[in-house]
Amino acid sequence: MVKNEWGNSIYPLVPGHEVAGEVTEVGSKVTKFKVGDRVGVGCMVNSCKSCQSCSDDLENYCPKIILTYSVKNVDGTITYGGYSDSMVCDENFVIRIPDALSLEAAAPLLCAGITVYSPLKYFGLDKPGLHLGVVGLGGLGHMAVKFAKAFGANVTVISTSPNKKKEALEHLGADSFVVSREQDQMQALMGTFDGIIDSVSAQHSLVPLLALVKNHGKLVMVGAPEKPLEVPAFSIIGGRKTVSGSMIGGIKETQEMIDFAAKHGVKPDIEIIAVDYVNTAMERLLKADVKYRFVIDIGNTLKASS
Amino acid sequence: MVKNEWGNSIYPLVPGHEVAGEVTEVGSKVTKFKVGDRVGVGCMVNSCKSCQSCSDDLENYCPKIILTYSVKNVDGTITYGGYSDSMVCDENFVIRIPDALSLEAAAPLLCAGITVYSPLKYFGLDKPGLHLGVVGLGGLGHMAVKFAKAFGANVTVISTSPNKKKEALEHLGADSFVVSREQDQMQALMGTFDGIIDSVSAQHSLVPLLALVKNHGKLVMVGAPEKPLEVPAFSIIGGRKTVSGSMIGGIKETQEMIDFAAKHGVKPDIEIIAVDYVNTAMERLLKADVKYRFVIDIGNTLKASS
Repeated sequence: MVKNEWGNSIYPLVPGHEVAGEVTEVGSKVTKFKVGDRVGVGCMVNSCKSCQSCSDDLENYCPKIILTYSVKNVDGTITYGGYSDSMVCDENFVIRIPDALSLEAAAPLLCAGITVYSPLKYFGLDKPGLHLGVVGLGGLGHMAVKFAKAFGANVTVISTSPNKKKEALEHLGADSFVVSREQDQMQALMGTFDGIIDSVSAQHSLVPLLALVKNHGKLVMVGAPEKPLEVPAFSIIGGRKTVSGSMIGGIKETQEMIDFAAKHGVKPDIEIIAVDYVNTAMERLLKADVKYRFVIDIGNTLKASS
Repeated sequence: MVKNEWGNSIYPLVPGHEVAGEVTEVGSKVTKFKVGDRVGVGCMVNSCKSCQSCSDDLENYCPKIILTYSVKNVDGTITYGGYSDSMVCDENFVIRIPDALSLEAAAPLLCAGITVYSPLKYFGLDKPGLHLGVVGLGGLGHMAVKFAKAFGANVTVISTSPNKKKEALEHLGADSFVVSREQDQMQALMGTFDGIIDSVSAQHSLVPLLALVKNHGKLVMVGAPEKPLEVPAFSIIGGRKTVSGSMIGGIKETQEMIDFAAKHGVKPDIEIIAVDYVNTAMERLLKADVKYRFVIDIGNTLKASS
């Protein structure tokens, strides 16, 4: 978005859709929050409030969803995100942050967290004792491991990089690790996964992943490779398997997710940075040199311009 | 199979996996059937009887499934199908045909019928009032229309051939018909389908079909194109959509299906032929010149060789 690589950026642009802070002011009709409340804002700040998705607490699938930054809101203003000392948001799109979570731990849950929590719930992958796979160990993937563990799953990280094994097992708490290029390791795990959360946006084959899934099992894409996924019909018909997608989550479920995270001690691994480190952080992101989210300490490092 | 196009045919080969007839003899331990019972056999005649799939009444997904013809059974014999005046089958793989169904109407239900009935049930597409699509109007597709109507769905046939419209609406009872190449017709139906059963084995794009599906909707493949299906990630992530496969059904569900068909008057459209017409029928099949299944009247046209 910063570099307009998707062609839809509106400048001046204020990024940031994993935002945590304190309420400093409320409008006269606000009932859910008061000054001083610890709150967060995720990927969206408005929706139509009248369609089926909105009625079903699935504003994230509303066709008129208003994203947190760089889109035109219903009043004609452009939305500005969280790289800022303040932001204004409709109370219906604000999440309450539980006391047990620090603001910096809460922020990445508001996109990365809900993006993996929601499909685990929706596709029935939140039951204890399931064998779940997580493909890709970035911002989304590392949260998928943690939520899956909190749900009581046996979690296997599936990765192209053998050097992530120690980290996955010892630090993130995965139960096992498999290198996707190692045929023997993959072969041994064939048909053993109830579900797999695939967070990889780089081009990759789904065939070996579908082979890992049990009959009636589910592969859920939360990453979005540019080219179409290739799914051989025989790889889903023979075992009644499913390839699905999922995109963030609704406000109600986001609140549920963050309350669950607070209760079960699910927190992202973060590196806190000052706002003047942002450009360096962007460069490091491109090299995947982050474990697993940068969090900008706006409060202590950005001087208000007004 | 007749021409060994899949490379796994074992000759001499007796085809036929939609078989209906009468019990002429039972073994001493048989308890479910007696001589004179009207029965059928579908795609399989044995399975391991001990795996999870077998325990779950899903013998169709047993990795050791024994198909009805041209495979080696557990006793080392080769299985022979229904193009015969008699066949021998384990009672656990025999279906009871209700009185309300003729043998010739029952036979095609045992593969074509269960293949579309099972995913409609499993994927929750059997609720009254849903909008369902059926892609392809062959043996499977025409049964999908009939079962979907019997479940109380609003059924739209999606076809490349405008000349199937009259047939779909007036004869098969579909509620509407859309020509998949007509952009305007397709555009008007975007996001309106709860589910689609795709029975086409020819290569085709899933993108326009996924666009027809509502958020959280389901596209189920029961046809198997040779090349991999292409599924753009954005086409499933944005609306939490699902692409799944399904393959026939278990014995218990096949019995349920045929009882349902009898109760609700769901019958295939068939053309009854004599056994000496088989080669001509095969040629007509290749030209899709059949509405919608040939049924060979073995009883009246095949002389026993013994």
